[in-house]
Amino acid sequence: MAFDNRRLADLAAHDAFLKRHNGLAGTDVDDMLATLGMESLPALIEATVPAGIRLGRELDLDPPKSEAEALDYLQRLARQNRVVKSYIGQGYYDTHLPTVIQRNVLENPGWYTAYTPYQPEISQGRLEGLLNFQQTVMDLTGMELANASLLDEATAAAEAMALCKRANKKASSDTFFVAEDVFPQTLDVVRTRAAWFGFELVVGPAEELAKHEVFGALLQYPGDSGRVGDLAPLLAMARERGVMTCVAADLMGLVLLKEPGALGADMVVGSSQRFGVPMGYGGPHAAFFATTEKLKRSIPGRIIGVSKDSRGNTALRMAMQTREQHIRREKATSNICTAQALLANIAGFYAVYHGAEGLRTIASRIHRLTTILAEGLKAKGVAMVHDSWFDTLRLTGVDAGKLHGRAMTHDLNLRYFEGGDVGLSLDETTTAHDVDVLFDVLLGEEHGLSVRELDESVIAAGTSGIPAACRRESDFLTHPTFSRYHSETEMLRYLKRLENKDLSLVHAMIPLGSCTMKLNATSEMIPISWPEFARIHPFAPRDQVAGYRQMIDELAAFLVEVTGYDHISMQPNSGAQGEYAGLVAIRRYQAAEGEGHRDVCLIPSSAHGTNPASAAMARMKVVVVECDSDGNIDLGDLRAKSEKHSDALSAIMITYPSTHGVFEESVREVCDIVHEHGGQVYIDGANMNAKVGLTRPGDFGGDVSHLNLHKTFCIPHGGGGPGMGPIGVKAHLAPFVANHVVIPLDGVEASSGAVSAAPFGSASILPISWAYIKMMGARGLREATELAILNANYIARRLEEHYPVLFKGRNGTVAHECIIDIRPLKAESGVSEEDIAKRLMDYGFHAPTMSFPVPGTLMIEPTESESRYEIDRFCDAMIRIREEVACVQRGDWPADDNPLVNAPHTMADLRDDSWARPYSRELGAFPSEAVKSAKVWPAVNRVDNVFGDRQLICSCPSIDEYRD
Amino acid sequence: MAFDNRRLADLAAHDAFLKRHNGLAGTDVDDMLATLGMESLPALIEATVPAGIRLGRELDLDPPKSEAEALDYLQRLARQNRVVKSYIGQGYYDTHLPTVIQRNVLENPGWYTAYTPYQPEISQGRLEGLLNFQQTVMDLTGMELANASLLDEATAAAEAMALCKRANKKASSDTFFVAEDVFPQTLDVVRTRAAWFGFELVVGPAEELAKHEVFGALLQYPGDSGRVGDLAPLLAMARERGVMTCVAADLMGLVLLKEPGALGADMVVGSSQRFGVPMGYGGPHAAFFATTEKLKRSIPGRIIGVSKDSRGNTALRMAMQTREQHIRREKATSNICTAQALLANIAGFYAVYHGAEGLRTIASRIHRLTTILAEGLKAKGVAMVHDSWFDTLRLTGVDAGKLHGRAMTHDLNLRYFEGGDVGLSLDETTTAHDVDVLFDVLLGEEHGLSVRELDESVIAAGTSGIPAACRRESDFLTHPTFSRYHSETEMLRYLKRLENKDLSLVHAMIPLGSCTMKLNATSEMIPISWPEFARIHPFAPRDQVAGYRQMIDELAAFLVEVTGYDHISMQPNSGAQGEYAGLVAIRRYQAAEGEGHRDVCLIPSSAHGTNPASAAMARMKVVVVECDSDGNIDLGDLRAKSEKHSDALSAIMITYPSTHGVFEESVREVCDIVHEHGGQVYIDGANMNAKVGLTRPGDFGGDVSHLNLHKTFCIPHGGGGPGMGPIGVKAHLAPFVANHVVIPLDGVEASSGAVSAAPFGSASILPISWAYIKMMGARGLREATELAILNANYIARRLEEHYPVLFKGRNGTVAHECIIDIRPLKAESGVSEEDIAKRLMDYGFHAPTMSFPVPGTLMIEPTESESRYEIDRFCDAMIRIREEVACVQRGDWPADDNPLVNAPHTMADLRDDSWARPYSRELGAFPSEAVKSAKVWPAVNRVDNVFGDRQLICSCPSIDEYRD
Repeated sequence: MAFDNRRLADLAAHDAFLKRHNGLAGTDVDDMLATLGMESLPALIEATVPAGIRLGRELDLDPPKSEAEALDYLQRLARQNRVVKSYIGQGYYDTHLPTVIQRNVLENPGWYTAYTPYQPEISQGRLEGLLNFQQTVMDLTGMELANASLLDEATAAAEAMALCKRANKKASSDTFFVAEDVFPQTLDVVRTRAAWFGFELVVGPAEELAKHEVFGALLQYPGDSGRVGDLAPLLAMARERGVMTCVAADLMGLVLLKEPGALGADMVVGSSQRFGVPMGYGGPHAAFFATTEKLKRSIPGRIIGVSKDSRGNTALRMAMQTREQHIRREKATSNICTAQALLANIAGFYAVYHGAEGLRTIASRIHRLTTILAEGLKAKGVAMVHDSWFDTLRLTGVDAGKLHGRAMTHDLNLRYFEGGDVGLSLDETTTAHDVDVLFDVLLGEEHGLSVRELDESVIAAGTSGIPAACRRESDFLTHPTFSRYHSETEMLRYLKRLENKDLSLVHAMIPLGSCTMKLNATSEMIPISWPEFARIHPFAPRDQVAGYRQMIDELAAFLVEVTGYDHISMQPNSGAQGEYAGLVAIRRYQAAEGEGHRDVCLIPSSAHGTNPASAAMARMKVVVVECDSDGNIDLGDLRAKSEKHSDALSAIMITYPSTHGVFEESVREVCDIVHEHGGQVYIDGANMNAKVGLTRPGDFGGDVSHLNLHKTFCIPHGGGGPGMGPIGVKAHLAPFVANHVVIPLDGVEASSGAVSAAPFGSASILPISWAYIKMMGARGLREATELAILNANYIARRLEEHYPVLFKGRNGTVAHECIIDIRPLKAESGVSEEDIAKRLMDYGFHAPTMSFPVPGTLMIEPTESESRYEIDRFCDAMIRIREEVACVQRGDWPADDNPLVNAPHTMADLRDDSWARPYSRELGAFPSEAVKSAKVWPAVNRVDNVFGDRQLICSCPSIDEYRD
Repeated sequence: MAFDNRRLADLAAHDAFLKRHNGLAGTDVDDMLATLGMESLPALIEATVPAGIRLGRELDLDPPKSEAEALDYLQRLARQNRVVKSYIGQGYYDTHLPTVIQRNVLENPGWYTAYTPYQPEISQGRLEGLLNFQQTVMDLTGMELANASLLDEATAAAEAMALCKRANKKASSDTFFVAEDVFPQTLDVVRTRAAWFGFELVVGPAEELAKHEVFGALLQYPGDSGRVGDLAPLLAMARERGVMTCVAADLMGLVLLKEPGALGADMVVGSSQRFGVPMGYGGPHAAFFATTEKLKRSIPGRIIGVSKDSRGNTALRMAMQTREQHIRREKATSNICTAQALLANIAGFYAVYHGAEGLRTIASRIHRLTTILAEGLKAKGVAMVHDSWFDTLRLTGVDAGKLHGRAMTHDLNLRYFEGGDVGLSLDETTTAHDVDVLFDVLLGEEHGLSVRELDESVIAAGTSGIPAACRRESDFLTHPTFSRYHSETEMLRYLKRLENKDLSLVHAMIPLGSCTMKLNATSEMIPISWPEFARIHPFAPRDQVAGYRQMIDELAAFLVEVTGYDHISMQPNSGAQGEYAGLVAIRRYQAAEGEGHRDVCLIPSSAHGTNPASAAMARMKVVVVECDSDGNIDLGDLRAKSEKHSDALSAIMITYPSTHGVFEESVREVCDIVHEHGGQVYIDGANMNAKVGLTRPGDFGGDVSHLNLHKTFCIPHGGGGPGMGPIGVKAHLAPFVANHVVIPLDGVEASSGAVSAAPFGSASILPISWAYIKMMGARGLREATELAILNANYIARRLEEHYPVLFKGRNGTVAHECIIDIRPLKAESGVSEEDIAKRLMDYGFHAPTMSFPVPGTLMIEPTESESRYEIDRFCDAMIRIREEVACVQRGDWPADDNPLVNAPHTMADLRDDSWARPYSRELGAFPSEAVKSAKVWPAVNRVDNVFGDRQLICSCPSIDEYRD
């Protein structure tokens, strides 16, 4: 009897991942198309994506790999990186990530798939984690408040420079001072920013600060050389002279060093990387920004504050959200959105787990070993350029070549300065044995020194590299949170308690328009934990990072094919950073072409607030182009404005499909008009998920785009970061993307300064996007886009009987998201879009994007990863909510006491025996069958935003307050 | 100024883990000693552990390693294992564990730290997972019911043999037939069991079954050779002749093969390893056991059944718990307790994630590649011993030496039979390229075969190795659970929903007496995922497993030092298995000494039920020794019984400290008495956690002990397994521990048969115990024991005013656990120990051990890992519960309507607007502050045990039933 044999090829596992990533299966697609009255998926796409810009072929990518194959290949790439002992320092240090944090935070989708905590009622867990981070930074820096992280130390320093200028109203100077002992990569980024802000930069010895008329100054503590100088006199002098100061400080050093707050700094920035976050060839890590009470309304980035909920209970929230760049727009001096929430949480938990005493042990060990090393070297006559240190030494007059040779033999990296000095920094992982090896490398094996004996003499003499005036005298981390969770069992339970307060993708769809909360597949995430990716210094020599370089090159090649651009710059470590990098590239290019005067940036009125902010930072004048009533760019207005500013036109920034969720038919024309007037076209990558495999910005007129790898290409949102925002550019712009002072990049102008601290941004999360593309292949990527569009149209169709759907394309379809209008409903019923957003929590969902791009609306993006079940569950919830609003309209429930205005409902509501609401507990908290079997409880009732902003508290509340 | 330098040694990280593992910190120890009126920890230990048996020195172990150092060392060991392509087969196959399951189940403490689901209300998640496993087994085997896993295929086959005998009342024969085509390791284990049951074994070609008068028969399907025979005629004939049959089947093969149920088997056993569970050098994996409705009351191991809760909702539970060996005791034919819950869950989830179609694709690919291989080999004239196959071929007349050489060159393992045949099995990971390489190895590189061409001809001809009569025709996995979760997003949410229904160590203390639910540290768990430990075949050649061997040797050396024995046998893969192995070693030894007639085993009345069951299985006669009113062994009775049975005395089995939680002063005397009468002393290792570092069973009289590595040595309970039960023996017993037919063990008698399928049991989880011991060091281990004793005494002290504490030692202290007596309270109030157990769930706790060893009591074991906070929270809850009982006693609440009898309280209770209970919702569900801020909700109300046992259903309920 013949066996029913299918072809081996059909049995291959290669396309299996596609079925895992995409949420629809079986007859779902056909059923949903039927709901839309569409014949086929191609027909839907044809109706949606303008014919003139469609790619018309499959992307040219290798056949997809199965998950196992992709991991195997990546493993082989990883093995081409060489993990050696790193003493390079310079802002990046090896560290021990406590494994309980690694497994239960970094590697836990309950943490990494969460969204930015805009909805505080279902975000109390990570908000508390971030508050711990802020408290850690405040305590160690001695400042009055701190934010919830920035992208990296270098950009944090650049933000500080901008704030110095903004806050220092009295200073007339446009000059900023940078101490020469600042990390070179920090100076590089500050230099780029200064150039486009129009600031002069003076770089010199810190002591010469007084010689210059400046609005602000940046110092490093300890210095790049390792020197620990007493900054107090300098900072006092600066204050006297009306100079605002920022100290870039080492967080581990501050455990032993006098806190910059006590020394008189106005701002303190730095990296929390060495608090447990792997170096990762440059990132992601959480930078910090701390300042004084006085500057609290101006602090860049997100800040977590303590407020109250509607029951009067303590509740955390992102404070002063209105400060975010979207309201400053073209007056912005910062475009920061994405933070490094996941990494800030890790650093905060590192502090929680170790506590003050644990940190003191770690920092003391680092310092002691450094002192032993320094004393040994001194005894042997090796000269150093400084006589103070925390963890870093800079040796001078040595034979760098010989040392390099011996270092290679011993598999360790030192830092080699131009001119022959050799530097080294010790870290948490350094052992006494390592110091012994360092003596061998630095002195030759016949050195005769004994670490133990040196230790004895250091103890006897009370030797330290920290000058008396610089020693810390104050306590830190005295809040009980930092002493209660030192056993692994208690820590684990703490982490799980926090995790279980938050709604993430592990629970439900997070239908955020423009944020693309798709699957972050486990196979994509696994490689980032591998030591061969995690334990690599960003400035490691090239022959140690062959695997990284190849992976990055391959990813760049994929993205070139996906976007139709010619080159990808991987440096920007957030979308906003990518915008800035792209605009700066345009300006550099135009300057090189003799068109440096072009400084007008056209921006449609529907744009995300980051666009004008980025333009302002690139010293462009923003000119707004109106949209017509369909939400499309008003071509007439575009022509008029282009004409008017023809000579000065630098660029247009558009989002495509538009922030209104529509593929505008005219996009090619828009690009042509701008090009005709000598402008460049910047296409925002936020909505790339609607384009992949169907149309390419590089083909229809884009000169540059950033790509939110954390949206379209599966890097998880991490509860508010990390992100990655590489930019694709046409060939003419390629020489003008960011370069890097330490690791010069191929094909980029030497004069192009950096935009981020590390040459390839947050390199360690790039394997995520690499794996996604590799496992999906051309067909998979296209189908994902098609299904994302199908899902959005299906939702629009199901909801349009109940809510007006704003903005559709020519054929009545939307792109990958849809906007529903709550304004008419609100006018009639008093129920607001916020009430609906909060009510969705009772149904077990995260709210869609609220009031962007149109106030009073909700923007819904399902992505391709959601199942029919989940999409229907969401639509059902929205329809039920509409019926609830109708009850309010009919007067069945009072306008001020109904399930909508009272939402979200909490356990505190339910257990309240005095419940006297006009609806049942069941209707309140269990309005659907799904939540009866699996309920995600909001941890607090609706949070009072105004209260929290009025009395800004961004430190951990006392236990008593929690108890209230 | 002199710096306050501490010694470098004091700054070392070496002892850091100790502080992570143990829960007490700061002044906790002193405060708690003060509560006890004890001067110091040594004073407490002196009062508790009899002077005569105290070790009096620190254990002789290397200084502890930090977590990073231990992981680094283990990594280096791991790299000494060589991961090569395995074609050995023989019951172990490489497999792809879906990464979403790996990360969110295997590597998730929410799953692996859970306890056996004795408390169903807080175990619905893993109960559903296990039900999926049962459904998968039932569907694929075609049997009417299946259990929730056994230890391995070989012991499952041995259990089947015992059940054949027990169920086949009509058969007078004591002979059991085993087909010669059964896996050698299965035969080995069956042979051991048969010998001690007193069964004859006949081994021969399956076809010759009819020639023998037997009570049962074991067949393999497909056979060890790879042959796929039609078993239907054989099974029909057996049935006719009154022979019970068991088919050992390959679960993946059954996807394509006719199910044994349809062929007429009475029982089907096998391994689910290749459903996603790594080979792990032998385990752990979940074996399955399926049988007919008729035998449902006799099926060994745990079985999950569907029942109702007090609201009438569907609720799962372990069915027929009363069947467990503790009631059969000395009449038992099985002593099985530990299952392989975690691995069964993984295998079940593998089936859920792939569904029937996915499994068909996988099995078809394996089979197709095997067919291509077979056809190619046939074309080249290579002979096979069979002309049918699923995934396995046995080649004959080949030059095994030459093939071996080429296999080594290509880094792959084949199976080499005695006599020169060569075997190979393909698996899920095999690719077309691999088959190409296999041709190179088997035929030499000039073979000229093309996999693609062979594939074409196989398709054209409809070739298959599965005879027509053996092809599966029936559907399987048709329950919706197996089609709904095929996208990773849906699967992830399903896993998280289930996880969040269960209470595990990530939420709260699980104070189970005798079960030692201590910290399972992340650093201990990480290595088990490494491919160098996970992807190793148990029969891999020795030169590929140097790392495993060294790790096992080191662990054995640690355990020798900890126990005072001379040798450790790692084979037993559960505690009960260890008991059996230990008793069998005693009997073998005595037989070798000409004392084979000794068959009396003394067992105190307080013993765990496993003890007499194990003794019965070793063909011993159990004689019970009475305990006195203090719970101690009655020395008079012991003397009398020893005297009486002096000639026949084989052994005594005692637990120390006793199951009553007391260090009996007389233990040395007990051992001496037994030795004087020629008996051996078996000391149950269940309570080893009270002994480590303080006293050693090998020193005070033990000849053999098993060690529950999943209790004392940190292997997590996994929700009901895996466990590991290696035994320590004195030198005279060492030659008589289990050997292994495939991998002969050093120093063991060749005639000693195996007790488990793999030579080192569940080898892949041994790194957990290795790391624990290595990171704790001698001082750490001792302190852990001391703190466990301190914690137990503290609880006893805090509770004794409220509940009578049964059994204390001479000085009024308990060991590492304490028993509180609920009987008086129950008599007065009607509130039972079960009510208290369920009420504890409302307070966020798992119940202590109920009614063991004394009915009507609760046995509480806090372990050393719990914090003062958690211990006090537990005591507070118990005291509050006592006050609640007082309310019932006073008549404040009716006896049939109060928070105790209504416990646990669920969301369903709380949202019920018709709540009319005499207490508030808050008191019901939120009786403490802690649960207000972090509530673990029981997923169902109190489960009806009787209902579930009466109508045993152990398949997935229809969705409609869930909806009820």
